[in-house]
Amino acid sequence: MSTDDTTTSDASTDTQTESKCGASTSDSDASTESKCGASSSSSSSGSCGASTDDEEEEVGATVDDFDADPGQLVAVGLGPGQPEGMTDRAKTALADAEHIVGYTTYVELLPDEITDSAEDIYDTPMCGEVSRTEEAIDRALAGNDVAIIGSGDPNVYALAGLALEIVESKGATASMLDFDVVPGVPAAQSCAARVGAPLVNDTVSISLSDHLTDMPTIESRLHAAAKEGFTISIYNPWSRKRRENFEKCCEILLEHRDPETPVGVVHAAGREDEQVEIVDLAELPELGETELIDMTTTILVGNEDTYVWDDRMVTPRGYETKYDY
Amino acid sequence: MSTDDTTTSDASTDTQTESKCGASTSDSDASTESKCGASSSSSSSGSCGASTDDEEEEVGATVDDFDADPGQLVAVGLGPGQPEGMTDRAKTALADAEHIVGYTTYVELLPDEITDSAEDIYDTPMCGEVSRTEEAIDRALAGNDVAIIGSGDPNVYALAGLALEIVESKGATASMLDFDVVPGVPAAQSCAARVGAPLVNDTVSISLSDHLTDMPTIESRLHAAAKEGFTISIYNPWSRKRRENFEKCCEILLEHRDPETPVGVVHAAGREDEQVEIVDLAELPELGETELIDMTTTILVGNEDTYVWDDRMVTPRGYETKYDY
Repeated sequence: MSTDDTTTSDASTDTQTESKCGASTSDSDASTESKCGASSSSSSSGSCGASTDDEEEEVGATVDDFDADPGQLVAVGLGPGQPEGMTDRAKTALADAEHIVGYTTYVELLPDEITDSAEDIYDTPMCGEVSRTEEAIDRALAGNDVAIIGSGDPNVYALAGLALEIVESKGATASMLDFDVVPGVPAAQSCAARVGAPLVNDTVSISLSDHLTDMPTIESRLHAAAKEGFTISIYNPWSRKRRENFEKCCEILLEHRDPETPVGVVHAAGREDEQVEIVDLAELPELGETELIDMTTTILVGNEDTYVWDDRMVTPRGYETKYDY
Repeated sequence: MSTDDTTTSDASTDTQTESKCGASTSDSDASTESKCGASSSSSSSGSCGASTDDEEEEVGATVDDFDADPGQLVAVGLGPGQPEGMTDRAKTALADAEHIVGYTTYVELLPDEITDSAEDIYDTPMCGEVSRTEEAIDRALAGNDVAIIGSGDPNVYALAGLALEIVESKGATASMLDFDVVPGVPAAQSCAARVGAPLVNDTVSISLSDHLTDMPTIESRLHAAAKEGFTISIYNPWSRKRRENFEKCCEILLEHRDPETPVGVVHAAGREDEQVEIVDLAELPELGETELIDMTTTILVGNEDTYVWDDRMVTPRGYETKYDY
């Protein structure tokens, strides 16, 4: 596989030594802290730094370490998190799974009837996306039907790509695991619904997290999107260690768009501390230092047609040029 | 509101005379074929041409034509269409609605328990997005709780913007109708799930329908997206009258991307005639003339990191540069 990611390492979050996992050999004798493998009862609290991406555990199991017929692996998108936002198909997939693997916050949102019917739940707090995914795959290789969950949709800065990469690196195949993806409502659309009709037409999603994509690439994409009149959903807009990414993003948007462009800011959508605001683009930079904008926020930037009416963002579909309504 | 849409009129689909509806006056005496208004029992088969956008009915009702306290208007995203793809919240919203309004194909996919519990269902075949939406709003202004349905999500080339525009033109407000948007799984994500992990990172959605957005704008957006390494979801890729839009799109993509870039082509996702293929970008142009690509198709274009493995598209999340798995 080719990759053009030249990741800018944020030294202050890289508190981990290099993690070695899942080399494609049949040597399951990993060095220290092997938390995974054929056992289906392992659990780990994933000790790591503040970033959700850093890993400490070493995982060395490959397909050759397992004797059982593999079970199924399903990546399930939960949508915003609350049960009412889940599709029937997601609920069925979770009810059918023997093991459910995911980030603690989302596991805790699952309805009791789902968690009660699972044989085992493996959840880790904040960090550990890579090791959780490896754990899920190992459990499936060991013969269990496993569902790995994530918020939103598995194809939106999420599970699907990572799961397939790790399956391949373990010498297994997606077909062997009858790998399936159950879509969910992405954050962009969940948050858009909270402010009315901000997106509507051609649209772009850009993440300001430069952990896996470097900032020059992100900036280039912001310029391209802002020039072209796309409505824009900004994911991962801010963290204590990446303030400058947010500041740069605002600067680029203001370079191409009217300072009065409506912007929807949705914090913690669907949660108890949800906050929804519609502001002018010019006001956005200063909001970076408020509680409104953090890692749980999605920012929806209007285009030149977007306006605010009755406390809602409206990006016209375009019919008004053709119909006199 | 400002608009920069200079719509290229495709004369062969504009078989309708200019439709006048909902001017902001209290004159409800529309000329011919007024199918809407204060009555809650009107139904219309919407005679129009092949395009889903052309209208014939004249609708003139405004907020002053109604005496009742308004009911609620909710725009509900169904996701791909089948009941299993709907969220619980969508089902609840439909069960709560007294009237359900939508395109016949999607109304027919609703579960019986939902259609049986509605007082009235207003559905029109193929055409009539504008008049259906006006009808839904008039029924809500008349005092009924109305749900207007669409596939996918209301913020994706869909209901939400149009509904708010029409509410405003009738002199009503969204607040008066307690207007709410219930998000659903967009076609990009439903289709992505069928081919694995094609999207994953920064992504763009572009529609090739130039009915409301002119082709030069669409081309400019395609260039911008293709240069920047976004994964790209192409909506409305082809119709008999817009073949050249598809051809131009392929040309632009090939200008910037490797001819071997994986492309997922998903036709009629979730329906009986669903077809899913993964092809090289170089093969895409010739598929325009096959049954694989039509108005029910969504095309998912990979970026330079995307590869095909075990019959699935994989766009890596990016961890492989940091973790040795």
